[in-house]
Amino acid sequence: MQELSLIKEILDKVSVVAMDKYTHRADLKVSSKLNAVDLLTEADEYLQDLITERILAQFPDDTIVGEELGSDVLPNDIKSRRAWVIDPIDGTQNFVRGLYAFFGISIGFVDQGEVLAGGVHLPTIDQQFLASKGLGATRNGSPIQVSDKPTLNVARIEIDYGNPIHRDDIMYAFEDVVREAGEVRSHCAAVVGLCSVACGEMDAYYHTHLKPWDFAGAQIIVQESGGTVCQINGDPIDVYEVGTSILATNGPLQNESLERIRIKS
Amino acid sequence: MQELSLIKEILDKVSVVAMDKYTHRADLKVSSKLNAVDLLTEADEYLQDLITERILAQFPDDTIVGEELGSDVLPNDIKSRRAWVIDPIDGTQNFVRGLYAFFGISIGFVDQGEVLAGGVHLPTIDQQFLASKGLGATRNGSPIQVSDKPTLNVARIEIDYGNPIHRDDIMYAFEDVVREAGEVRSHCAAVVGLCSVACGEMDAYYHTHLKPWDFAGAQIIVQESGGTVCQINGDPIDVYEVGTSILATNGPLQNESLERIRIKS
Repeated sequence: MQELSLIKEILDKVSVVAMDKYTHRADLKVSSKLNAVDLLTEADEYLQDLITERILAQFPDDTIVGEELGSDVLPNDIKSRRAWVIDPIDGTQNFVRGLYAFFGISIGFVDQGEVLAGGVHLPTIDQQFLASKGLGATRNGSPIQVSDKPTLNVARIEIDYGNPIHRDDIMYAFEDVVREAGEVRSHCAAVVGLCSVACGEMDAYYHTHLKPWDFAGAQIIVQESGGTVCQINGDPIDVYEVGTSILATNGPLQNESLERIRIKS
Repeated sequence: MQELSLIKEILDKVSVVAMDKYTHRADLKVSSKLNAVDLLTEADEYLQDLITERILAQFPDDTIVGEELGSDVLPNDIKSRRAWVIDPIDGTQNFVRGLYAFFGISIGFVDQGEVLAGGVHLPTIDQQFLASKGLGATRNGSPIQVSDKPTLNVARIEIDYGNPIHRDDIMYAFEDVVREAGEVRSHCAAVVGLCSVACGEMDAYYHTHLKPWDFAGAQIIVQESGGTVCQINGDPIDVYEVGTSILATNGPLQNESLERIRIKS
């Protein structure tokens, strides 16, 4: 698939640049977006430009959707377009400050509202995840699959505590899940969390408010690894819904998670 | 200081062995201790023996205190002894299953109940933290210090959700802290969390139930980096209290944390 090959080519190239930026992060200008913990670096913008240029060189009529492009309001006809949903650095806070550097570059290719190919690269551990619809998912070229943990009490899950503006919603929704789970993690880089589920190193990932670029590239990797992705009320995900909830699981944990997630009436 | 030199020498050597065990972790036998998520690997035992042998070769009369040594019940006169409190792999769950491998080797040297030297090595990112009383703390040889984040709402904190048997206590104690904090993480390897505070990449770390080997090596690293370590009610830490709570901060966050932590009456 041409689009998947392009995603791989871009990730191979951009991950090297990202790693270089990470190594020299002390020199980067960092600004705040929404609030003190919602950060943007020069590196985000630089990498986004690199990705965008390369996509448009090959597919000049396609649409680019991305965090740093002011895409919170999407074109009305987005669902009839071919689009690329990108996040040059998902986990910018970790990029800026993390002892362990949880961040990923994410690219999803969407046609008519359906994700058909996706890729995520985690530069500091040099792991590249790729998937395309119906053809499975890989990590550094080897097929991956989700875990078989059957119940929450033996599972490792990630609650993404996200930005403080959503904290109350997150704490409310997942209180019973946190209480029940075997192990609880919070790494706060959505594409990393989703890829952890895909490769079986985590069993479920939960968030109440994600934007398209936080999951488009990774959602298909979970699905093609045998996992499930839906909203926290069980409804299907819409890749263009800005602020969607997400529940990604290994499969067996989906029903128990839906039973334990608290939905405000 | 002779003891700190020994800690460094052991960490230099054992971290290489640990990294090799991590690389070949698929071959390791894993058993459960307390429950399904409290794990022990052959690597824990092997590394503990290496560490113990080397210490006793130089200080044959000293006492070794460690997780895999059945040290939950300590000798009555432990506070009059010279002792080494060790954890060959803190974060065994992450060692076994983590995409990002959060685990550390920890050694603390204690005399008369006071930690006088400590070291932690994080093999997968090859970072070594060392400290001795009154002489400051280093990471890979360079001095480190805690952050200057003044308030929780702009801070990155770690709530260690730990084992399910303590989950209710943890959720209760830190509910208001989680609600207030700028960023919440949970990596679940105490010595890593404490070193993250020491080097200023995290601002505070919270737990309700730690054992001596989970913090002895790292506690002094936080203190010698300018941070604070106490129990969650503000009382001083006793390094030999099995199941102590811990609040480690950059300093400015201590008072606000103590105000927001909920103590069961």
